[in-house]
Amino acid sequence: MEFTVEQVAALLNGKVEGNGSATVNRLDKIQEGMPGGISFLSNEKYENFIYHTKASAVIVSKNFQPKKDIKTTLIRVEDAYTGFTQILEAYSQFTKSNKSGIETPSFFDQSSHIGEGHYLGAFSYVGKNCIIGNHCKIFPHVYIGDNVKIGDNCIIHPGVKIISDTIIGSYCEIHPNTVVGSDGFGFAPQTDGTYKAIPQVGNVIIEDFVSIGSNTTIDCATMGSTLIKKGVKIDNLVQIAHNVTIGENTVIASQAGVSGSTEIGKNCVIAGKAGIIGHLKIADYTTIGANTGISKSVEKPNQTLFGYMGMDLKGFLKAYAIFKNLPILQDRLRELEKKQ
Amino acid sequence: MEFTVEQVAALLNGKVEGNGSATVNRLDKIQEGMPGGISFLSNEKYENFIYHTKASAVIVSKNFQPKKDIKTTLIRVEDAYTGFTQILEAYSQFTKSNKSGIETPSFFDQSSHIGEGHYLGAFSYVGKNCIIGNHCKIFPHVYIGDNVKIGDNCIIHPGVKIISDTIIGSYCEIHPNTVVGSDGFGFAPQTDGTYKAIPQVGNVIIEDFVSIGSNTTIDCATMGSTLIKKGVKIDNLVQIAHNVTIGENTVIASQAGVSGSTEIGKNCVIAGKAGIIGHLKIADYTTIGANTGISKSVEKPNQTLFGYMGMDLKGFLKAYAIFKNLPILQDRLRELEKKQ
Amino acid sequence: MEFTVEQVAALLNGKVEGNGSATVNRLDKIQEGMPGGISFLSNEKYENFIYHTKASAVIVSKNFQPKKDIKTTLIRVEDAYTGFTQILEAYSQFTKSNKSGIETPSFFDQSSHIGEGHYLGAFSYVGKNCIIGNHCKIFPHVYIGDNVKIGDNCIIHPGVKIISDTIIGSYCEIHPNTVVGSDGFGFAPQTDGTYKAIPQVGNVIIEDFVSIGSNTTIDCATMGSTLIKKGVKIDNLVQIAHNVTIGENTVIASQAGVSGSTEIGKNCVIAGKAGIIGHLKIADYTTIGANTGISKSVEKPNQTLFGYMGMDLKGFLKAYAIFKNLPILQDRLRELEKKQ
Repeated sequence: MEFTVEQVAALLNGKVEGNGSATVNRLDKIQEGMPGGISFLSNEKYENFIYHTKASAVIVSKNFQPKKDIKTTLIRVEDAYTGFTQILEAYSQFTKSNKSGIETPSFFDQSSHIGEGHYLGAFSYVGKNCIIGNHCKIFPHVYIGDNVKIGDNCIIHPGVKIISDTIIGSYCEIHPNTVVGSDGFGFAPQTDGTYKAIPQVGNVIIEDFVSIGSNTTIDCATMGSTLIKKGVKIDNLVQIAHNVTIGENTVIASQAGVSGSTEIGKNCVIAGKAGIIGHLKIADYTTIGANTGISKSVEKPNQTLFGYMGMDLKGFLKAYAIFKNLPILQDRLRELEKKQ
Repeated sequence: MEFTVEQVAALLNGKVEGNGSATVNRLDKIQEGMPGGISFLSNEKYENFIYHTKASAVIVSKNFQPKKDIKTTLIRVEDAYTGFTQILEAYSQFTKSNKSGIETPSFFDQSSHIGEGHYLGAFSYVGKNCIIGNHCKIFPHVYIGDNVKIGDNCIIHPGVKIISDTIIGSYCEIHPNTVVGSDGFGFAPQTDGTYKAIPQVGNVIIEDFVSIGSNTTIDCATMGSTLIKKGVKIDNLVQIAHNVTIGENTVIASQAGVSGSTEIGKNCVIAGKAGIIGHLKIADYTTIGANTGISKSVEKPNQTLFGYMGMDLKGFLKAYAIFKNLPILQDRLRELEKKQ
Repeated sequence: MEFTVEQVAALLNGKVEGNGSATVNRLDKIQEGMPGGISFLSNEKYENFIYHTKASAVIVSKNFQPKKDIKTTLIRVEDAYTGFTQILEAYSQFTKSNKSGIETPSFFDQSSHIGEGHYLGAFSYVGKNCIIGNHCKIFPHVYIGDNVKIGDNCIIHPGVKIISDTIIGSYCEIHPNTVVGSDGFGFAPQTDGTYKAIPQVGNVIIEDFVSIGSNTTIDCATMGSTLIKKGVKIDNLVQIAHNVTIGENTVIASQAGVSGSTEIGKNCVIAGKAGIIGHLKIADYTTIGANTGISKSVEKPNQTLFGYMGMDLKGFLKAYAIFKNLPILQDRLRELEKKQ
């Protein structure tokens, strides 16, 4: 899609200085700006690029005072960063979320219901007794089992599998090939060394405004519900085991894992590859560093934990600094021993 | 589905005390019991909840002696936990495994064969020369390549990809979006710094009673077979590389990984995020802790290994306790040095 | 497929000694050779097996001098290993890449184009304005969004999801259920503790000769492109975050992860489960060991890094050797203290 600079300025309530009839069809970083692209200048560090950029237009804040000649066209707005974000969102909606209607073949059990403004991609599957709200986009190869409830304005990307009895709120987005609601890993050891599967009859409940990345797995509860609360953001390749609770607005980065029945508080930040064992409670506002292992509950909120067994960050860094120099420390000890 | 308490008691050969005509349609934890739910009391720790629970019925062992008034209905059985497990299984079979028949469109090459009592979900794909046994459930979006053999009573969940030449036994369950039999990661370095793929022409063999989680990957062998023996249980997001052997009844938790050609013995337990490098042998009955790295073969059975490089668990914990206090140890050393 | 030993010899420009009319339909390791199989002898260590193997034929180098009686048929070629590799490739092409034509139902938007010699599997999906080159194989359940470009001779395995605007070169192979181009994990914290998604409007560019494993995730850039350069090989369950660049011929093993905006040089080797945080630069020819964490840029090429926080390999191993014996070191310190 192509727009004129004037059209973009109108969307932003901005004022054009320069060639308003130039056309743009792309968003560029200011340091990589090329004809046909639109950039923004918000951080002073990048100011120098505006005097050389080949972008067709640059969004600037209304009080921006150029120190040299400007060759590109300016769009002056209240705040440049906010303005650019508005364009990002508009662009994103045009390009990524403009799907609607029903593609064929798709499979939609007649006992289920989907609201208005929907998109059902080809090869999508919706089982029995599902209730899906308004303005939901179900992309190709999505599987939705039986008795699933989904609120309004959700985007379920290609290949996502939502197993029976899952409940999802409104304004949720689940990225490709993620699995929600498959069986928890529960097996009872038998006396002959084999294991017997413990039936997993619970479900997953995902509240509003939750985002889940690609190829992530969220298991159903053995009984009751695995619970992902409002506003949680989960990245790619994350494991959430059965009966886990993730508190509101907690963020979990890629390849982290949370074992069974652990309860994580609200507004926590769990970095990439962190692992938390089962049956723990993690206090609100806890930060867990990358690749950190947590094997004990965290009772005091607002701590930052780090390291192989989840120490206080400062304590870990001090200990680790000495670990790196253990050969020297050992030499000093030897030296003392010799002197005895 | 709704049942009366009497019907549930009949299934369990139990005796009702209270209102047998109440209807139940859900399983609840006793501490969360609500009308319409059925719970159980097995562990004494939870006894107090039975006097307050709102569950419509609670399963108890035949010799349970209430210490206070009971308001809920009791179902007395030989053993409360076993009774509840029976219900779990019945419930699970009703809700999760009751699929049968062929949904359309699906793709089934005419050179392949599937036994009686099958379910073939919409958009499932079965290639050439496959032999699938009786009572198998192939869910939507499953891909089965050419020359695949699957035994009886298997459940292949939505989106699983089973690549050509894979052999799977009976009573296996593979959860959504797992990949079995894709190419091993084998590349021969060339003199110009590039890599050339080594054709991976082997397959994967999975024996009976194996369970595999969601979004897991099991690569085919370069030649010969990657082998998952009888009774193995594998969790979500696990990596099993080419030519690996996993011994009978070994359990592998989420996000663990086993590199190429490693042989793991029987009845091992490999915890979450553990990593085992290639070409090792791990003895029977080995326990490998969470996030543990194993870089040497384990010859003696029955050990528990832990830590970044897989030490004996007790040894690791002792060393780690001192690691945490390295700054203090260094101070003590300094103190001694000053006195010289 | 069955071939005679003569046919195989003809393919290899080799000379048959023994029964050229025997038929073979399988490749075996020499130590596991059975009738109907063809093996090779390259490494002297395995010579003894050739005198007992039941394989129908064994490929040997032209100057191989048997020390005992040979019962199997020999195919003499210039170099046995090279010869066997040729067969592997031919076999692999016959069995894994012999698909062609269009299976139904599939979904192919009429605004898109695919070149000659293609395979479009059942339930594959190609969106709007895509350009796919010659001799590409698109397996079942593949999703290709809008405006995707793919070069020649690519194999896209079952269940792969390629999101809109992705650009892929020639001779690339992407294994099952991998996701390319889904949204990066970018959220702006709000003053009320919630997060707001930052639109991810960039794409992924994959150059020629790239191989990507199963269930891997490669996120699109926030703006601009996530870039996987020529000859890169990526294993299963790997995470590549938004705006990452991976240099030519770099190899990344299973379950490794690279965080946002990091640039990795060329010809690096990143072992399994390694993690690299965001906004770093990793020099060319860097080797990063298994499970290693990297939290600082690597400026000098050709280093090998290892350990929880990515130390020089030798330094780590020395420090770790002392870590294991910290209880002894502490005892020695106590001993000295007593003597004061």
